[in-house]
Amino acid sequence: MDTKRDAVLQTAAKLYLEKGYHKTSMSELAARLNITKPALYYYFRNKEELLVECYRAGIDSIEASLREAGDCQGTGLERLRAYIEFYATAIVTTDFGRCVPMLDDAELSSPARRQVRDLKRRIDAAIRAHIEQGIQDGSIVPCNAKLAAFAIAGAINWIGTWYKPGGGLGEEEIVSEFSRLLISGLAPRS
Amino acid sequence: MDTKRDAVLQTAAKLYLEKGYHKTSMSELAARLNITKPALYYYFRNKEELLVECYRAGIDSIEASLREAGDCQGTGLERLRAYIEFYATAIVTTDFGRCVPMLDDAELSSPARRQVRDLKRRIDAAIRAHIEQGIQDGSIVPCNAKLAAFAIAGAINWIGTWYKPGGGLGEEEIVSEFSRLLISGLAPRS
Repeated sequence: MDTKRDAVLQTAAKLYLEKGYHKTSMSELAARLNITKPALYYYFRNKEELLVECYRAGIDSIEASLREAGDCQGTGLERLRAYIEFYATAIVTTDFGRCVPMLDDAELSSPARRQVRDLKRRIDAAIRAHIEQGIQDGSIVPCNAKLAAFAIAGAINWIGTWYKPGGGLGEEEIVSEFSRLLISGLAPRS
Repeated sequence: MDTKRDAVLQTAAKLYLEKGYHKTSMSELAARLNITKPALYYYFRNKEELLVECYRAGIDSIEASLREAGDCQGTGLERLRAYIEFYATAIVTTDFGRCVPMLDDAELSSPARRQVRDLKRRIDAAIRAHIEQGIQDGSIVPCNAKLAAFAIAGAINWIGTWYKPGGGLGEEEIVSEFSRLLISGLAPRS
């Protein structure tokens, strides 16, 4: 990817996450990048194109993590654990990853919106499939797999609302605590 | 509360949750209510006032639930369980409850925004306090209480993105499955 174009996109993702899509203007983005507005428009036609490209970069990074988790062998519980860890890592390590759950996909044009919604459905379906496999093979307690998948996706997606890169909480600590809590719960095991 | 004013507010909350704040217009709200725009403006000056009042109603319903959970006696784990159940109930049973986590508080004027952010902080702090109490009294495994509180709040707040009242999933089933998953995890206890 063109380095300057990439810098524009990275900064747009940061601003969208900080201020929301509606409150971010092209003028502010140009100012933050210390470039002129015509220079900015050379790379992207408008705010919506930037939003679509942020989603696309986020989807790419999440899909790559999920493919890795899908390759993991083992019980349903082990595959679910790998999935949680790869997905949480994709969310905490990249601004683009956080754009996917945090930004409102209703802002997108129909084809881009369909692509984003398909990805979100694939994420939910993959979590559900691992849980169902785990219930079958006895590694996961009988439960409503659909609701359990929503709870897991929600806990991880919500990271985008509170996580500040470089803040007090480290990436690895977040990923390992979330994995442990969602897999083993908070009650002691006797 | 005035019944007509209440109906306007209920419908505004529904539309905001369905379409987002930005894509909801006063004309559409009037049409949905089958009233004229002047009739609508008799009750509320503008879209922002409606948003503030939706938040206020949501905050009231969540605070009432949280007071009930705070009155619960017992170990940290028992208090946390009560908290999760009351909070999840407030989120699934009212559109106003879902407005609090789902709508963007950056749209609010400063005093209203402060009030909403204070509530959100109180919710996180109360969950954290119950977890810390549980770690002390041995009813909860040693963990990072701040991260565990974020995971729990995230799973519950995210309900607003997928829950459809009257859909296939019942309110009680959601509340009990979330409580069980977050407290006991998915791995079998031997």
